[in-house]
Amino acid sequence: MTHFGDQLAYRIKELQNPSVVGLDPRLKDIPSYIKDEAINKFGKTPEGAAAAILMFNKGLIDAIADIVPAVKPQIAFYEQYGHVGLKAYEDTVAYAHQKGMLVIGDAKRSDIASTAEAYANAHLGTVDVFGESIPMINADALTINPYLGSDGITPFTKVCKEQGKGVFVLVRTSNESADEIQGMAVGDELVDEVVAGLVEGWGRELVGESGYSSVGAVVGATYPEEARELRQRMPNQIFLVPGYGAQGGGAESAKPCFHANGTGAIVNSSRGIIFAYIADKMTERAYAEAARAAALRMKDDLNRLF
Amino acid sequence: MTHFGDQLAYRIKELQNPSVVGLDPRLKDIPSYIKDEAINKFGKTPEGAAAAILMFNKGLIDAIADIVPAVKPQIAFYEQYGHVGLKAYEDTVAYAHQKGMLVIGDAKRSDIASTAEAYANAHLGTVDVFGESIPMINADALTINPYLGSDGITPFTKVCKEQGKGVFVLVRTSNESADEIQGMAVGDELVDEVVAGLVEGWGRELVGESGYSSVGAVVGATYPEEARELRQRMPNQIFLVPGYGAQGGGAESAKPCFHANGTGAIVNSSRGIIFAYIADKMTERAYAEAARAAALRMKDDLNRLF
Repeated sequence: MTHFGDQLAYRIKELQNPSVVGLDPRLKDIPSYIKDEAINKFGKTPEGAAAAILMFNKGLIDAIADIVPAVKPQIAFYEQYGHVGLKAYEDTVAYAHQKGMLVIGDAKRSDIASTAEAYANAHLGTVDVFGESIPMINADALTINPYLGSDGITPFTKVCKEQGKGVFVLVRTSNESADEIQGMAVGDELVDEVVAGLVEGWGRELVGESGYSSVGAVVGATYPEEARELRQRMPNQIFLVPGYGAQGGGAESAKPCFHANGTGAIVNSSRGIIFAYIADKMTERAYAEAARAAALRMKDDLNRLF
Repeated sequence: MTHFGDQLAYRIKELQNPSVVGLDPRLKDIPSYIKDEAINKFGKTPEGAAAAILMFNKGLIDAIADIVPAVKPQIAFYEQYGHVGLKAYEDTVAYAHQKGMLVIGDAKRSDIASTAEAYANAHLGTVDVFGESIPMINADALTINPYLGSDGITPFTKVCKEQGKGVFVLVRTSNESADEIQGMAVGDELVDEVVAGLVEGWGRELVGESGYSSVGAVVGATYPEEARELRQRMPNQIFLVPGYGAQGGGAESAKPCFHANGTGAIVNSSRGIIFAYIADKMTERAYAEAARAAALRMKDDLNRLF
């Protein structure tokens, strides 16, 4: 039986790279030679958009699989093309696995009881199809939203336990208005600090040999002070850290998300890596090469922290 | 230009029925003659499951379209069959529209900025496909989660404004552990009461001629005291009320979700309607008829409140 927390912790160590590449394939920024090929085959249709996305992703995965532990496809960018977009998402997950990468599905799902169970089965586990258990999307981990409390979390952690998968619970997001709800004061604590306590509890029975739980936490790099506090409250959680690069946080701002020994966090960059060819003024054909170079720069950037 | 708040308020009035039927098609409870037909065509595959779900839903929609204002498909039950499940979801939305029903997509999505925009476009608006704007899922309204604050809401309200669509923001959910986060005390208020204030603000510029906003709120029937408080704080919000029937709340418990004049709420029942044939010990072939009878009983039940 696999254990997601251990898997991720060991793979980070092996590659000496605590980063994850966000696969947020905005069609407008995908190289036009890829889009032209997709349009030639499928026309200017959602099928064409999905084909372009998948081709683009495969090139990226090929370019980074040996240096980056995980990819994080943001499902909204696939879901927007409806069911053919979701097919491209499924195929992206499968391709990343084929190339040895871990996959963190960024879906931020939230619901309760049997509905949450359906999401958990779909994204991480197996789904009952007329009596047969079939893996469906089959990512290694999924981001989830805690607003509904334990009823919205335990159906996911149950699947994590049974199938060796993981979740990252939103605790402190990286956006400006995160404070509106997450930053409210509840007695001496902030809402996100109370949530951190819940996450620590939910993850306790899923702590692996690495010392890390398969129940992780999303903690933005844009609130370093708060990250320091949350790091103390969730010692066994791997932090999935958005907000590096495009959202304004540098490596230094992500530092409080790590333990002093440099473990315990995985920092995400999406646009900064996958569309590096634009920022770096390279040719479209070099998009994957540019992504690899950007991923290596990010790795070095993060490794300089400790 | 349509206005979702007005559309829903007027349709409730026209049918004298403040209820919505949740389309949560659990495969195990779908009549076996429908499943057999689907298996004959597609085998014991996700395609077969999706076909069974769609056939089942069409029968339900045919049976209730003239007496119930809206359906609320719970996307998790479709998403669990991957992209073919999402196709069944899309087809369900289209079929309900064809029969004159409003569709509230229950997806509880949450994200920020361009990612939230992608969800909003996918579920409610139009998606750019190589320069053409194409409606994708095209529901009338969508449930969304407020944990990320305004950044996670305004991309949705923007689409609501531009396309005449609506959202229902989770404020107080119907489950037992809702209190863990939503019920925490922030000074003199509870977290969900602060969220209610935010929702009222987000919805202000979308209040229609009916007096109701296209930005509604999810408020469970299982916390009547709290519902009373929230009703006062969100006078212009239509409350989408889960927890009637299977989750234990009767019509009486939903009463505080309405204004004194009997408007301002729409009560959901899922299993209690769509699988009424099981509880009422009717034959499988009578599942749609049983659903219609259950929907009429629920309508009467709610109309007795005022």
